[in-house]
Amino acid sequence: MADLHPDIAPLGFLLGTWRGSGTGVYPTIEDFAYDEEVTIGHMGKPFLRYEQRTKRAGTGDPLHTEVGYWRAAGDRAELVIAQPTGVTEALAGPIDGTSVALASVQIGLAPTAKEVVTTERRITVDGNTMHYTLLMGAVGQPHQLHLDATLTRIAE
Amino acid sequence: MADLHPDIAPLGFLLGTWRGSGTGVYPTIEDFAYDEEVTIGHMGKPFLRYEQRTKRAGTGDPLHTEVGYWRAAGDRAELVIAQPTGVTEALAGPIDGTSVALASVQIGLAPTAKEVVTTERRITVDGNTMHYTLLMGAVGQPHQLHLDATLTRIAE
Repeated sequence: MADLHPDIAPLGFLLGTWRGSGTGVYPTIEDFAYDEEVTIGHMGKPFLRYEQRTKRAGTGDPLHTEVGYWRAAGDRAELVIAQPTGVTEALAGPIDGTSVALASVQIGLAPTAKEVVTTERRITVDGNTMHYTLLMGAVGQPHQLHLDATLTRIAE
Repeated sequence: MADLHPDIAPLGFLLGTWRGSGTGVYPTIEDFAYDEEVTIGHMGKPFLRYEQRTKRAGTGDPLHTEVGYWRAAGDRAELVIAQPTGVTEALAGPIDGTSVALASVQIGLAPTAKEVVTTERRITVDGNTMHYTLLMGAVGQPHQLHLDATLTRIAE
């Protein structure tokens, strides 16, 4: 295992495999509950690799997955993501201890993707517990809460 | 293993693990040769998951990696990608048999990413051989050839 690159050390608190559950709300859909697994790793380079999968609570049907990379520029974090919904996100925002608050800088849409206009991701890690919220302005709706989840680090 | 979702079947020719080598050129850098591994898989949903890694030929030093998802809308392909350089790409273009020609629709840049303006990816599969070229307009340079590689399918 390579050492963590010093440029990405401010985001080292995100490393690990995380499992937990969350809830989703949005005006255009029914509320839902989900189980989630997140893996955030590194290969000694100045970025972290991120992948996420969610399943519907109860049925286990796959819901969402996304993948991307974390970068750090001093006390600012950057996150780029691709989603199988045909959406890309480039986000940025401040790192504050073991919290990070990201807002979308640019959202890319493949021609048949649903319209996503803004996203915001707030993540706080306390020991082996991660809590995040995701806000989104999409499909004609104002920017608002979409996801809220709490995960536990199950592996470093 | 889930069956391939019919919506993504037009891109089924991309599935597999691919290995090979390529060359890179660009006015702002020295020419380079690289070894590459690409994995394109699915989980029964209407998209393919794509991940790629390259290493410098000879030294084996890691060069580039990227990850994303393929989608199909009839005879049109869509590809969304995240890169640890802080760049996202949303591309689209026609599927012609076992070839696909994609041009960037939207490119997203994290605040500290180098400027990429246009990309174009042309991929042809003939049996177990994949050939691709990647063209790019970036860092003030006109749109032009950047990568050319030939890969062999080593696993389905």
